[in-house]
Amino acid sequence: MVDNCVFCKIVKGEIPCYKIWENKDFLCFLDINQISRGHILVIPKNHFNNVVDCDDKILGKLNIVCKKMGLKLKDKLGASGFNILNASGKDAQQSVSHLHYHVIARYPEDKLDLWFHGNIDNKYDLEDLKNKLIK
Amino acid sequence: MVDNCVFCKIVKGEIPCYKIWENKDFLCFLDINQISRGHILVIPKNHFNNVVDCDDKILGKLNIVCKKMGLKLKDKLGASGFNILNASGKDAQQSVSHLHYHVIARYPEDKLDLWFHGNIDNKYDLEDLKNKLIK
Repeated sequence: MVDNCVFCKIVKGEIPCYKIWENKDFLCFLDINQISRGHILVIPKNHFNNVVDCDDKILGKLNIVCKKMGLKLKDKLGASGFNILNASGKDAQQSVSHLHYHVIARYPEDKLDLWFHGNIDNKYDLEDLKNKLIK
Repeated sequence: MVDNCVFCKIVKGEIPCYKIWENKDFLCFLDINQISRGHILVIPKNHFNNVVDCDDKILGKLNIVCKKMGLKLKDKLGASGFNILNASGKDAQQSVSHLHYHVIARYPEDKLDLWFHGNIDNKYDLEDLKNKLIK
């Protein structure tokens, strides 16, 4: 547990949450800012900053919990799909420094657009990038 | 393998790709439309439509491969962070119906914004949503 980590405080029960599901390793609760009707955060109870410092065992299980939450959004709220999203690092728009995955319900014609916006220039040399990444 | 699935064809080598890494279960290659400098797709070699029909064993391992790719983006390209993103279902903006996770490099002041845009009305009754999801 990390002092002054808001998600650690939620795990400890010091800050309330709208809890959807938990087991010994994970806690799932509603994001306070629902971007869609059904927007769940999946967090490990132990503190990891993000994917980078999380061990593989927890990371593997985490994705299975995300599926579980996605199926809940479909079964209980009638979502027709869902997105799973993680930000690792401040520059990746990570807001809270406690590893979390968003699982977000989607609906037909929900008029949402989850993708990159901004200064996009995707004219990269793929061969060069590949060579850099595999060496 | 599914006929007319572009990612199955990539797995079979019928369509070329910029391969970054593979093992018996997974293939990682550059997205043809790099949204950032270093944008990798992680796919299982076997065909699953999306997270919904993917078994837990593959889903668990998949997230560990995503981390591996994220670390490559940091180590080899100097990214300061990364995003992991999945779309499950057409209404979730899934473009290719073969399970894939995007792992996308982020950089300081890259002026990208990965979040929802559009018709967002997040005034939902959290207590009501929670009750629907846990029952």
